[in-house]
Amino acid sequence: MNTKPARGMRDFLPTDVRRREYVIGVIKEVYERYGFEPLETPAVENIETLTGKYGEEGNKLIYKILRRGAHESTGAPNLALRYDLTVPLARVVAEYREQLPKFFKRYQIQPVWRADRPGRGRFREFYQCDVDVLGSRSMVVEAEVCAAVCHVLTELGFTDFNIHLNHRQVLAGILDVTGVEREKHSEVLITLDKWDKIGRDEVLSELELRGITVHIRTRLIKLFDELDAMEKAFQSVDVDGVGTELEDWNNRALVGLTKFISDHEAGAQGIDELRSILRFAAANGVASKIKIDPRLARGLSYYTGAIMEVSVGREIGSLGGGGRYDELVGMFSEKSVPACGFSLGLERIVVVMTEREMFPASLMAAPAEVMVTVWDDESMADSLALATELRGAGLRVDLYPEAHKLARQFKYASLRGIPFVAVIGVTERERGEVSLKDMRTGAQQSLPRGLVAETAQAMLKG
Amino acid sequence: MNTKPARGMRDFLPTDVRRREYVIGVIKEVYERYGFEPLETPAVENIETLTGKYGEEGNKLIYKILRRGAHESTGAPNLALRYDLTVPLARVVAEYREQLPKFFKRYQIQPVWRADRPGRGRFREFYQCDVDVLGSRSMVVEAEVCAAVCHVLTELGFTDFNIHLNHRQVLAGILDVTGVEREKHSEVLITLDKWDKIGRDEVLSELELRGITVHIRTRLIKLFDELDAMEKAFQSVDVDGVGTELEDWNNRALVGLTKFISDHEAGAQGIDELRSILRFAAANGVASKIKIDPRLARGLSYYTGAIMEVSVGREIGSLGGGGRYDELVGMFSEKSVPACGFSLGLERIVVVMTEREMFPASLMAAPAEVMVTVWDDESMADSLALATELRGAGLRVDLYPEAHKLARQFKYASLRGIPFVAVIGVTERERGEVSLKDMRTGAQQSLPRGLVAETAQAMLKG
Repeated sequence: MNTKPARGMRDFLPTDVRRREYVIGVIKEVYERYGFEPLETPAVENIETLTGKYGEEGNKLIYKILRRGAHESTGAPNLALRYDLTVPLARVVAEYREQLPKFFKRYQIQPVWRADRPGRGRFREFYQCDVDVLGSRSMVVEAEVCAAVCHVLTELGFTDFNIHLNHRQVLAGILDVTGVEREKHSEVLITLDKWDKIGRDEVLSELELRGITVHIRTRLIKLFDELDAMEKAFQSVDVDGVGTELEDWNNRALVGLTKFISDHEAGAQGIDELRSILRFAAANGVASKIKIDPRLARGLSYYTGAIMEVSVGREIGSLGGGGRYDELVGMFSEKSVPACGFSLGLERIVVVMTEREMFPASLMAAPAEVMVTVWDDESMADSLALATELRGAGLRVDLYPEAHKLARQFKYASLRGIPFVAVIGVTERERGEVSLKDMRTGAQQSLPRGLVAETAQAMLKG
Repeated sequence: MNTKPARGMRDFLPTDVRRREYVIGVIKEVYERYGFEPLETPAVENIETLTGKYGEEGNKLIYKILRRGAHESTGAPNLALRYDLTVPLARVVAEYREQLPKFFKRYQIQPVWRADRPGRGRFREFYQCDVDVLGSRSMVVEAEVCAAVCHVLTELGFTDFNIHLNHRQVLAGILDVTGVEREKHSEVLITLDKWDKIGRDEVLSELELRGITVHIRTRLIKLFDELDAMEKAFQSVDVDGVGTELEDWNNRALVGLTKFISDHEAGAQGIDELRSILRFAAANGVASKIKIDPRLARGLSYYTGAIMEVSVGREIGSLGGGGRYDELVGMFSEKSVPACGFSLGLERIVVVMTEREMFPASLMAAPAEVMVTVWDDESMADSLALATELRGAGLRVDLYPEAHKLARQFKYASLRGIPFVAVIGVTERERGEVSLKDMRTGAQQSLPRGLVAETAQAMLKG
């Protein structure tokens, strides 16, 4: 019998769970400080809710669930597993519009499932930690969402991160100006988005394969080569995390893009919005973390405005991303609702924090503070009563469940790193005492039963 | 476009999530105090892991996921959604045996999915909150698990609950003694388990339908009628929660069963185990909550020893249940591992707590403590900076994202129950001040900007 989890899925043993819960705890706390409220949606959605929302590639990666009952044998699916947290949010906003505030600020931390090829930090079941604001077109929203993400990463102990920022309208402007037909925009963006992964020359060949003429390819690559050269000049003095260098690059990039886009109206508006976001981010104290990235495109098809992606160090791809998607809610209801959000990937954060040993030592705590031993079968009830008393005093207490030899019980406590072991032997029982051993020092003392809890608590603190 | 969640599934808006997380928080804290450690397993399992573990009925309710890629069109499933937390635990114990302690005490709080008919407090996606102990045959385990559950319910504010206790070997003894063939045991148990739902006479007809002879039916019903009459005598003085009455019933029931079972060895051993559990539960301080229930059978096929079910008041069916399942791990590995656990259902707890208004008032907290308003487009950055300062001081702060009329912004804050509203108007900006309004009293004051956070914090406390 195969006892492994399904391919691309993982079991989380206690230490893993504690690490994940620590990160989730920090994220929740920061998001609550920004006025976001929690939302949860079901893992299983009607299949029509998900199909057609993620582009062709995405569609293929959705897990589909067989229809139940008599229809099962047809092999037709009617349900599907949640693929992200954004589409369910759009459905929720359409469904509960009347009950929700005009500006709905929600966070949502739940697993999603994608039938993707598993890889480093990439799994088929993974947690997304999303914040979104619905109901406003103000760039304050983009700035607040970026600030919240920066705040989360700072609180977790990261310093070497950047939020890459771009705008779908600016990208559309560039493609219009270079002469890419509208129908080809999305595939050209998908190719451009791969630049950092596959390199400039591969991007050029892929554009050729996609039927982009040599004339357009040349104009396009010239712009990005220029921007690239400009960016490299800044990187030579290590742009990451260095505020004024970064601001200089951001300004130069926006000036370059403005010039290129010229009188393309939507593109120019996109650049204005990027400027607003940078200005607001400065007020939020996170300007030094935000970097204009003219090649950033993001895979998902629903983005309409600013797009963001956060990277840390050089170990791993992005930790998450987001953007504005003003048309998605409109796919579920007659009334369209502007929206913008950011999604952090839990697993990559945990991978990097584990490699860099960023978790606090207190997380690796023993499963209990005191282990109560069992002297013999007859005294079992006594041991249970002691465990109950100590728990009543607030201690985390494990009870050894069998009357094994005491040496074996001590060895077990030691193996598990439990700092105190309590014994009620024959003598102790007669005297109403308990023998308490500090496993860290080896010191052992006999105490009146009523003093065990406070003694252990005092020694745990000191 | 349908915007409802799929049938039997639910969206949880912020108030719902807060209630659920409150209950989960209490459960976790109590389970940790008993020395349990957290475990998580994937929502999706290989289909073979789940099939054949839950009996024929259970098998039908498993959600099956279509094979991906080229095989998708065959309509054949290879994955399935988690159906409970016990079978994945058995798989985990078989897989990680070497890494886990000899006595593995774990809690697990995750959703499971069943294609069941939805009903009151019964959904197709629901959370189970499980504790299990693996590695020991000691009845201490049953007692500890019951004590932990009692402790959780008490901590949540319940007083009128009972844990119903029975034993599969005792049931087998009764059926052997009355002459029910071994192959019919499990279906007779399923019928008996329905007694409280469908009543005595329906049970009798169902037994007849199942081909149980009149002779056996008569013997069986005579025993349960006698026990029932005995129990009713105790209930007439309100057995629930009354310690000594309950103890008397427990003793009388066990004496009656012992007499009936006579020299049936496994049955007699089961009765001994029930006596041990009652004795240990007394040491754990929860004897007054445990009630022998000779008809309790539990649906799942994997139980081998003690079985438990917890009920509260009379509003709703059981809040959860559990038992010993010494053979389940053996289905995944050559080495069998004794095990016993208890599962609480989150949704029913939340339903009853909501109806009885048991949630603390602090849970209904506003989405933020302070809302920062926006005077005009130009001062937007100022408002952002103020929000950032207040958050830095630890306050939960919402920022109104648009330069709407101030009256509208105040109305919004009032609607959302946010206790403080901060305004930076023209005069305030010139003076480096902020106007802070206490929405609960209507009192408004101008403060130096640096004093806003501590003033709001002081007023929130006082």
